[in-house]
Amino acid sequence: MPDRRLDVLAIGNAIVDVIADADDPFLASEGMHKGAMRLIDEAEAARLYDAMGPAREASGGSAANTVAGLASLGLSAGFIGQIADDQLGTIFTHDIRSLGVAFETPAHSGIGATARCLILVTPDAQRTMNTFLGAAQMLEPDAVDPAIVAEAKILYLEGYLWDPEGPRAAMYKAMDAARNAGTKVAFTLSDSFVVDRHRDNLWELFRQSRIDILFANEAEIMSLAEHDSAEEAALTVAADVPTVVVTQGPKGAFALSGPERANVPAEPIDSLVDTTGAGDLFAAGFLAGEARSLGLERSLRLGAICAAEVIQHYGARPEADLKTLAGDLLD
Amino acid sequence: MPDRRLDVLAIGNAIVDVIADADDPFLASEGMHKGAMRLIDEAEAARLYDAMGPAREASGGSAANTVAGLASLGLSAGFIGQIADDQLGTIFTHDIRSLGVAFETPAHSGIGATARCLILVTPDAQRTMNTFLGAAQMLEPDAVDPAIVAEAKILYLEGYLWDPEGPRAAMYKAMDAARNAGTKVAFTLSDSFVVDRHRDNLWELFRQSRIDILFANEAEIMSLAEHDSAEEAALTVAADVPTVVVTQGPKGAFALSGPERANVPAEPIDSLVDTTGAGDLFAAGFLAGEARSLGLERSLRLGAICAAEVIQHYGARPEADLKTLAGDLLD
Repeated sequence: MPDRRLDVLAIGNAIVDVIADADDPFLASEGMHKGAMRLIDEAEAARLYDAMGPAREASGGSAANTVAGLASLGLSAGFIGQIADDQLGTIFTHDIRSLGVAFETPAHSGIGATARCLILVTPDAQRTMNTFLGAAQMLEPDAVDPAIVAEAKILYLEGYLWDPEGPRAAMYKAMDAARNAGTKVAFTLSDSFVVDRHRDNLWELFRQSRIDILFANEAEIMSLAEHDSAEEAALTVAADVPTVVVTQGPKGAFALSGPERANVPAEPIDSLVDTTGAGDLFAAGFLAGEARSLGLERSLRLGAICAAEVIQHYGARPEADLKTLAGDLLD
Repeated sequence: MPDRRLDVLAIGNAIVDVIADADDPFLASEGMHKGAMRLIDEAEAARLYDAMGPAREASGGSAANTVAGLASLGLSAGFIGQIADDQLGTIFTHDIRSLGVAFETPAHSGIGATARCLILVTPDAQRTMNTFLGAAQMLEPDAVDPAIVAEAKILYLEGYLWDPEGPRAAMYKAMDAARNAGTKVAFTLSDSFVVDRHRDNLWELFRQSRIDILFANEAEIMSLAEHDSAEEAALTVAADVPTVVVTQGPKGAFALSGPERANVPAEPIDSLVDTTGAGDLFAAGFLAGEARSLGLERSLRLGAICAAEVIQHYGARPEADLKTLAGDLLD
């Protein structure tokens, strides 16, 4: 791959997370699926916020967390996502830029508030997410500059953003630019409900050879292939996607790439606090390895190290220096 | 004391904390005094925010943290403070109300943004605070209803808010209402620079017998009495203030009340993360004991337990249930 300015350019939701502790009866009374993400409107966001306990706020968004991880690993990254011209938008912008990530999507007014994700963390460290997309879903193709896509080794697309029409069109535009420039395209399925809503469209993407690397957890890959074994599901998908990465929570992760197969156990941790961001940071580690051409196994190990850091504290972005944690794996 | 609806009614800054890690060279390059609070204007807040690393946000404000601690201890508390009609104001309101604290001060627009405190936490867990007061300093005497002061056992006043004129007038109005209703008045000195700016005025308050309980750390009490021994300084102040409580960081705390004297060591902790809120939570524990008439020593022990909880995580409000931590001390 020629030398390029950015290792990874990501397109995703620009979200501020609002994180509160909650117990199982609260989730049950709200009819929430533990561990899942659901979209809510502004009125429901206000109602649920009133019902929640005291919270802490931190910048989030799945692909944005991934580029934060890449920056912490010492890689160069850019992000495209829509914020509103408000205080939460200022917070999002500060947090991602202060990591050295290139983020230039202009804030807009009159498109609703900056997106929020109300995250309920249960005592088992699982996170249940309620997302008010607000401004984030107003991303338009205009926000994607093909010249910047061409400067990246890898374009990374967030599946959560596949629902609304404008962002989907923006991602198609970015995929076209990537194909013209020889930029690899990575896609994360994000959530099994997203997969369920867009299964046919996603298979079309794969069969059009638009996706080079696919990230999924077990539930997502099984939903995609409509198969009750994650292994079999991954093999099926691997017929159309060059590299398939499947995270398996405490069991670790595996990846298939042509005839190659690698797997890695989860990294040992001291204490499990909040699993928010585990998949996002796994993707950061793997993409770092991919951008540096380190091979499947080292890339998976980097993913496991990054995921282990983020689940040991509240919030979905790394607090420790991931480059230090990665040590000579990155050399 | 007759049965009253509120154990403690506090008047203080309504602030959202913006917490980032920083190193000593950064503090030095910014000319900051480690561990101190300085007031900054909006332009400086924006400049410093740009220079800081990624942050997490959580409701703060010294007296607001104290009432959060009181609520976690199971006591009834109210809060008076000024927010703007903006997203940070919504966050502040949610967090304090979701704890069960009565907070009814109406949000105003056209008075600047809700206050922010940019807190830099160094590897030694010390916090250095840069406060943009914004709307918080626009608190006016109208916000104080004497009938609500009369419903509280203790009125608690935040020294940080002694600088601006409107809030000072509001606190004088509240002190008058407290005197008429037999409500005890507690005051926290907040910061040695605040003491230095208002030393004569503070001594006047004490000599007018307006203050029943004074909270200070060693630097503050020494500045107040202009004495280089905290013990001697406290003795001097105790001639004019019925109860004087001095916190001493890792050494613990002591209190003087008439002929009585008590002291307590710091509670053992597993790991020191962020000392923000230590004094605020110490005050919560002590005021809980005072409201329940538990005596100096038990009140000090409650203070030490609450302070120990808050310094073991980022953010200035309790995350654990303080009532459980206090156990039979509160009975």
